[in-house]
Amino acid sequence: MATRKSTPDTSRRSERSRRAIYDAALALVAEVGYPKTTVEGIAARAGVGKQTIYRWWSSKADVLLEAFLDLTDQAAGQEPPALPDTGDLAADLKAVLRATVDELLDPRFEAPSRALAAEGVVNEEVGRQFVAALLEPQLQLYVDRLRAARSAGQVRPEVDPRIALELFVSPLAQRWLQRTGPISHAYTDTLVDYALYGLAPR
Amino acid sequence: MATRKSTPDTSRRSERSRRAIYDAALALVAEVGYPKTTVEGIAARAGVGKQTIYRWWSSKADVLLEAFLDLTDQAAGQEPPALPDTGDLAADLKAVLRATVDELLDPRFEAPSRALAAEGVVNEEVGRQFVAALLEPQLQLYVDRLRAARSAGQVRPEVDPRIALELFVSPLAQRWLQRTGPISHAYTDTLVDYALYGLAPR
Repeated sequence: MATRKSTPDTSRRSERSRRAIYDAALALVAEVGYPKTTVEGIAARAGVGKQTIYRWWSSKADVLLEAFLDLTDQAAGQEPPALPDTGDLAADLKAVLRATVDELLDPRFEAPSRALAAEGVVNEEVGRQFVAALLEPQLQLYVDRLRAARSAGQVRPEVDPRIALELFVSPLAQRWLQRTGPISHAYTDTLVDYALYGLAPR
Repeated sequence: MATRKSTPDTSRRSERSRRAIYDAALALVAEVGYPKTTVEGIAARAGVGKQTIYRWWSSKADVLLEAFLDLTDQAAGQEPPALPDTGDLAADLKAVLRATVDELLDPRFEAPSRALAAEGVVNEEVGRQFVAALLEPQLQLYVDRLRAARSAGQVRPEVDPRIALELFVSPLAQRWLQRTGPISHAYTDTLVDYALYGLAPR
């Protein structure tokens, strides 16, 4: 997780600076990529002194991590930190994956998310840090939902939820990351049906 | 596909140069990344003149594309351009995915493949070119195998093979690309079983 160096004061002025720094960090990484993004560049673009950034964060990785967490929080809105559980596993998974498709196609996400994902592919430290902070917590929500479904007898008892979720999450991730195919609600609905009921005849 | 500008002569000297250029291109992209890899840099490292490269290829993307195709061919050895079809779909898929795990863990592949994949995430032109030349032909082998299995009644008639293959290929790809988990033969075996038989009880 991000290491925030001191508790931020909550004055309006400091909140404005924080927001400006997040926006600058996301815009800059989208434009020039992770390696060329610097704390100095973020500060200049945000119109704050470099020391303002170092007061709150230790490194550009920390700033970017919080900026992404904030962006994800905004997109998630008031959603609770759990997947829906209506008792209909297929419907619940489809609803969440449709929302993820919309998020991936949102231009506010696209460029900074790609810049960060690309850096994670070649830079193991950055990759692991961002997966741990951003991706794995989302995947754990699927683990919880699949575990509940398993308890309800809707998932086979021997299935490992952490692997099972990859049958529908990873295809969407690969199509987005590597552009191996278009993404849509119909596509993710199909993934859920194939994963739950299998490719072999029943 | 790569646009080779002229038919290469087949003399031993030219074959040695070609091999040196492939090796230099793969080593350089692994070390400095795609953006900083140049035709000049490849030439210097291979000990050939820049003109030698431009005689055979139009751009660094073309050189790298052929270098990767050559690397893949070497790894594939004398394998035929089709997946095995023993009649046992699960066993055939597991065998191919185990070989892919071994390839992904091979250090000769790791660094150059990551450099190229990372560039493809942020650079749509490079991404599409390399997917079309390197990845999609491999995925089509799964399409063919799944189509044969469908004809044999081992895959449900309504299943689209191009989507179905993603249930086991994409999880492996995402774990490798984003380091979201370890990869092993046991892991890919599990993916095949989950995909074929589904998560829901039968």
